Amino acid sequence: MTQTPLPPPLHDALVQLLGPSGVLTNPADTEAFCVDWRALYHGKCAAVLRPANTAECAQAVALCHAHNVPMVPQGGNTSMVGGATPDSSGLAVVISTTRMNQIHSIDHADLTMTVDAGVTLKAAQDAASAQGLLLPLSISSEGSADIGGILATNAGGNNTVRYGNARELALGLEAVLPDGSVLDLMRKLRKDNTGYALRQLLVGSEGTLGLITQAVIQLQPAPRSRETALCAVENPQGALNLFAAFRKQDPSAIHAFEFMSGTSMALVNNLIEGASLPLEAPAPAYVLVELASPRADDSLRSLMEDILGSALEEGLVTDAVLAESESQRQSLWMIREEHAEAQKRAGASVKNDVSVPLAAIPEFIADATKACEALIPGIRVAPFGHIGDGNIHFNLVQPEGADPAAFLAQDHAMMDTVAAIVRKLGGSFSAEHGVGQLKTYMMPSWRGGAELQTMRQIKAAIDPQNLMNPGKVLPPA
Amino acid sequence: MTQTPLPPPLHDALVQLLGPSGVLTNPADTEAFCVDWRALYHGKCAAVLRPANTAECAQAVALCHAHNVPMVPQGGNTSMVGGATPDSSGLAVVISTTRMNQIHSIDHADLTMTVDAGVTLKAAQDAASAQGLLLPLSISSEGSADIGGILATNAGGNNTVRYGNARELALGLEAVLPDGSVLDLMRKLRKDNTGYALRQLLVGSEGTLGLITQAVIQLQPAPRSRETALCAVENPQGALNLFAAFRKQDPSAIHAFEFMSGTSMALVNNLIEGASLPLEAPAPAYVLVELASPRADDSLRSLMEDILGSALEEGLVTDAVLAESESQRQSLWMIREEHAEAQKRAGASVKNDVSVPLAAIPEFIADATKACEALIPGIRVAPFGHIGDGNIHFNLVQPEGADPAAFLAQDHAMMDTVAAIVRKLGGSFSAEHGVGQLKTYMMPSWRGGAELQTMRQIKAAIDPQNLMNPGKVLPPA
Repeated sequence: MTQTPLPPPLHDALVQLLGPSGVLTNPADTEAFCVDWRALYHGKCAAVLRPANTAECAQAVALCHAHNVPMVPQGGNTSMVGGATPDSSGLAVVISTTRMNQIHSIDHADLTMTVDAGVTLKAAQDAASAQGLLLPLSISSEGSADIGGILATNAGGNNTVRYGNARELALGLEAVLPDGSVLDLMRKLRKDNTGYALRQLLVGSEGTLGLITQAVIQLQPAPRSRETALCAVENPQGALNLFAAFRKQDPSAIHAFEFMSGTSMALVNNLIEGASLPLEAPAPAYVLVELASPRADDSLRSLMEDILGSALEEGLVTDAVLAESESQRQSLWMIREEHAEAQKRAGASVKNDVSVPLAAIPEFIADATKACEALIPGIRVAPFGHIGDGNIHFNLVQPEGADPAAFLAQDHAMMDTVAAIVRKLGGSFSAEHGVGQLKTYMMPSWRGGAELQTMRQIKAAIDPQNLMNPGKVLPPA
Repeated sequence: MTQTPLPPPLHDALVQLLGPSGVLTNPADTEAFCVDWRALYHGKCAAVLRPANTAECAQAVALCHAHNVPMVPQGGNTSMVGGATPDSSGLAVVISTTRMNQIHSIDHADLTMTVDAGVTLKAAQDAASAQGLLLPLSISSEGSADIGGILATNAGGNNTVRYGNARELALGLEAVLPDGSVLDLMRKLRKDNTGYALRQLLVGSEGTLGLITQAVIQLQPAPRSRETALCAVENPQGALNLFAAFRKQDPSAIHAFEFMSGTSMALVNNLIEGASLPLEAPAPAYVLVELASPRADDSLRSLMEDILGSALEEGLVTDAVLAESESQRQSLWMIREEHAEAQKRAGASVKNDVSVPLAAIPEFIADATKACEALIPGIRVAPFGHIGDGNIHFNLVQPEGADPAAFLAQDHAMMDTVAAIVRKLGGSFSAEHGVGQLKTYMMPSWRGGAELQTMRQIKAAIDPQNLMNPGKVLPPA
């Protein structure tokens, strides 16, 4: 009756543990868990397990461990790098966290939220917001991505410039280790120097060292004032100089500092309805800056006006518009958020989620633009992204009217061209998205030697049978 | 001629590598490296090695590794827990980082400093300050403690409430692993999701996984405005409520938020010259709050006055004094900083560097006070510390006129009494100071099970011969 290669004793034990609806084996039920949302990877699995709490999860993992069955942790299935998709062998089980979805408490003294892994980021944000607090992490997939997944991948997003990545927000953590034992690090302590940083190690390990089941997330008071401006600048160096001007006055006021190239902005203005440029004329580059503070006084407005006033006088900023209402603010953010969609409508594109030191950004964009234009005449180099973190989405859009397939056939040439320049400048080939299975092949050349060796030693020590999310992060030895 | 148990070929190779002054074997030269500054531990060593750069350090470690010689990394030798002191066997070498003391660069675009492990924290702070920047970590031993040591122990201090511990400040890291290979993580990237968090793991591992040789430290713009106030409150809950009031308005303005019990303050006022209480009358408890911002406008002053005004009206604060000059500010800080000295002058004392969740602080202080007073009638319970981080130095001073030795003979009873309450409340037995050799015995009961097991697995994987700082952090299996 069951359509699974799981050993019958394991299958029966799992059904007894998790109930019939906790063990999916029908391909119609499991298929959605075996394909990533970008449909880059089509895997197979022996079953999808849906534990409802940590105890069930731990017992399920222990059973799989005893039977030597590989396990693929999966949250909202929004990985950009195939990090939560099983391979094509069909031997692994997917362990879905979606049933573990309780928000246990919000602590106003500690400003923390205790939450299960399967709660979506959006649900957690909303729960904080309903109590006048802010969960300061925002990514475009937040409606589906869950807390376990954002921690497993150390998610970033628009507010990293102010609050750091997911790792910095996790004050406590609980995870099930590959052998089914429970690692309980659910402490609410800002200072605790009692041994190795296991919490930080689990965060960002992409499910290869354990399955995150719960977390204590640090919250912030909700902003009571906010100022948002779209600014025209001459080039990336101008954007960086403007960032430095804001940072010099008050780094903690900068909640977002986003860069958009003129090329990418033109695509938005031309291809997205209702996204016309609210400035007098197109510019070579743009910055969207948002200041925010829990303070209700008007000092943020004067800070914004003072800095932009000086920048306009000096010619650093050539034009700027300040949001005068929440709806104007949302319009400015819409312009930023539509860059991915506009690029999609412009034809085939190749994405590079890279980071470099701030000082190297102008050289990176100039050199990489030149190299890509030399590689493919007519290519539209359309970078944008979180310039305050040094994180540029260096996206490449096909020449107008060109054949998309022919363009995409050169994707590796384009990616390698960009990567070579990133590397020369001390950057990273994955700023936000992680390694998953898409980028494991890059690990030996970029993170080789003692670094990769140490990662392998840690993996082998914690997961000697290589059962937890095999094939992710670390390439085959 | 040499007075060392080192195998002659190893000794000769080390002298050839490091020069005669780089290999100390004369007991008169090595003795200072074998005793911790509190003189709790008197160890011996086979030699003190003093490499001048990473390459020398790596080769020296490789040589010791090949000869199976244990190594004890040592920076400024300011550990509070014997973390940098060799054992009494005399078999280990101490590897001192004091010769590796170059500040390589300060990057104004990235706001980072690239620095050798052996640079003292004070020297690094001064170098940042000379360029209008702030290295936002401050501890009382900063004149001796070096960058390698503060990272190895994940140091905290007065500004953790705003900027986090040392771990949060280290953007890049270089370390020599136990086999002599160099782990180069000297990247200046705020976003880099390419594998396991080795940097975070090395930080706080107290030299047991490798020897930190260089770091990239994140800096901040120097404050241009600062407001400092000493406030009288009714009890620890009052201090916490005041903290919440400041945090609700602007967490990022709070550079320090320190608690002092009335008992501890009375010792300072009575025993330290020039440290009279600048308030009308003694109170049950006090808070020293410092706001700071790189903004030069006057909004910080109004923020301080608004919050304290409301707090005085509500009776949350019963009296307060604001520093009206830099010298008044320093006087207020002097009162805070003299607590350790005042307790020393009051006789024998027992120190507990503990943390609990913020919400649990009032219960912790009340219960631990009651329990200690029941244990030793007349004991002076004199807590103070970084209440904004939940970190209380719960110090116990002998009864007036009692015999110091008799009091100290009960130190374990006192520590265990305090620890039991900390543990019940989900706290930590070492908030700032680490484990070293002083507290390894507490690891199995506090961090046992999967947590200690995982730490042991990592240690065995990276240092299978147990050569790097053996006997620290992890107790014998």
